[in-house]
Amino acid sequence: MPIMIRKESGRMEEFKPEKLREAVLRSGASEELASEILEDVNEKLYNGISTREIFRIVHQLLDREGPSLASRYDLKGAIMRLGPEGFAFETYIGEVLRDYGYRTKLRQFIRGRCVEHEIDVIAEDLNGKKSIIECKYHNAKGIHTGLKVVLYTYTRFLDLIEGFKDGRCEKFDEVWLVTNTRFSSRAIQYAGCKGVKLLGWRYPPENTLERRIESKGLYPVTILRSVDTRSRNRFFDANLILAKDLIRNDFDDLLEKTHLEKDKLREIVTEARDFYN
Amino acid sequence: MPIMIRKESGRMEEFKPEKLREAVLRSGASEELASEILEDVNEKLYNGISTREIFRIVHQLLDREGPSLASRYDLKGAIMRLGPEGFAFETYIGEVLRDYGYRTKLRQFIRGRCVEHEIDVIAEDLNGKKSIIECKYHNAKGIHTGLKVVLYTYTRFLDLIEGFKDGRCEKFDEVWLVTNTRFSSRAIQYAGCKGVKLLGWRYPPENTLERRIESKGLYPVTILRSVDTRSRNRFFDANLILAKDLIRNDFDDLLEKTHLEKDKLREIVTEARDFYN
Repeated sequence: MPIMIRKESGRMEEFKPEKLREAVLRSGASEELASEILEDVNEKLYNGISTREIFRIVHQLLDREGPSLASRYDLKGAIMRLGPEGFAFETYIGEVLRDYGYRTKLRQFIRGRCVEHEIDVIAEDLNGKKSIIECKYHNAKGIHTGLKVVLYTYTRFLDLIEGFKDGRCEKFDEVWLVTNTRFSSRAIQYAGCKGVKLLGWRYPPENTLERRIESKGLYPVTILRSVDTRSRNRFFDANLILAKDLIRNDFDDLLEKTHLEKDKLREIVTEARDFYN
Repeated sequence: MPIMIRKESGRMEEFKPEKLREAVLRSGASEELASEILEDVNEKLYNGISTREIFRIVHQLLDREGPSLASRYDLKGAIMRLGPEGFAFETYIGEVLRDYGYRTKLRQFIRGRCVEHEIDVIAEDLNGKKSIIECKYHNAKGIHTGLKVVLYTYTRFLDLIEGFKDGRCEKFDEVWLVTNTRFSSRAIQYAGCKGVKLLGWRYPPENTLERRIESKGLYPVTILRSVDTRSRNRFFDANLILAKDLIRNDFDDLLEKTHLEKDKLREIVTEARDFYN
């Protein structure tokens, strides 16, 4: 009999050890540690256990081996801590794309044929191809980004294409929808049909949002445990959204930009250095 | 100095006696009563008074003159009590349209070119013209139906037009968006540009949703004060959503359909008769 687990959405699902192993490995754990953790989890499993409880167990085990492992394992939580509003998520996605070589502009008002649209991110690649990017941020787990969001994202793009024909705006070549959750199957189906690029949790399978973040270490500052709400807001106000920024910048510059207490900032920068070591 | 009032959305607005007079008259009050009420309200006004407080004062004054007046004055509240989910609102809009001569179908799954859509209401007029109707229900006051909703409503329509070309679904001629709130100005602008028909609170100005309801007495059962949550659910389960249905149907039939206690049902039906007298 397979063990059934309860997801955040309330739905039951069969426990798949391989999925858990992958998640543990993505945090940077060795194959050996991952196997140990899976054994430990196996002993504590019971029918109807929640994904939240499994997460807690694994997080604790990783934390014992190394706090950075545990932090990386909680990338989803770190992104949730960007909220509750979607503002910082847009900025964060802009930063991730810049690191991938795009030139980006945030929150631009662009006139289409029918109305003016607020575009979360405009991204231009090295060949001059321009994309509009809708960022959909959910501040609770267990929610999917559904069909309606892809529908309105696509119509915005259509209105800008027509706006370009009318001479109202520049030319845009592509439209993306980026989210911190999974997509519903109908959302994926419609996007595939119309050529809307999707980027989100576990999607697209070969190059998910979390892989793009992890492979280049583009974690948000909220991945660091010493970053509390107050210091997080100071970082956001200073336009420092990537944990990397805290080690790329000079300490005195950070101090001046954030107006944080020296000791607090030192604690955070020290954690950031450990995190990237 | 004009008196400023605080709306549900938190925004301040100048108090306009004429708007209040119209609302009072719509409840069925005489010109004379409306003038009296306006005088009374005038005495109680102060800068920063909330629309909720003004509503409470007027409601109380109307109630003294006749409970039916007070109930009709609270049409917005009656529609709110259809919630919290949008399900009953869809059914209600279907009933309103039927009374206006449309043939309606609720919650149909229709295949478009890219995906299958759940269409809240399909309405066919006497000439055989078919419309798809998206119902957007908000269960709190002070919210506008914004651009995104019109955008996805229109894209659904486009996908069904393409679906018809592919031979996947029947032909639809029009698309409507119906809501229990106001529309944002950008929503109105986009809808006008693309021919999406809008019907909602105070819109379109010459034939608003509330006027369509009031002019034919198509109030929901929740307009009656004796209808509590329990009896409301019984009515909904029995597909009785219009207050009119309670006087159009035979008492024993109602009893059988709703399984309500005789006394409770008699109280409600009596209120309904008074309401329509």
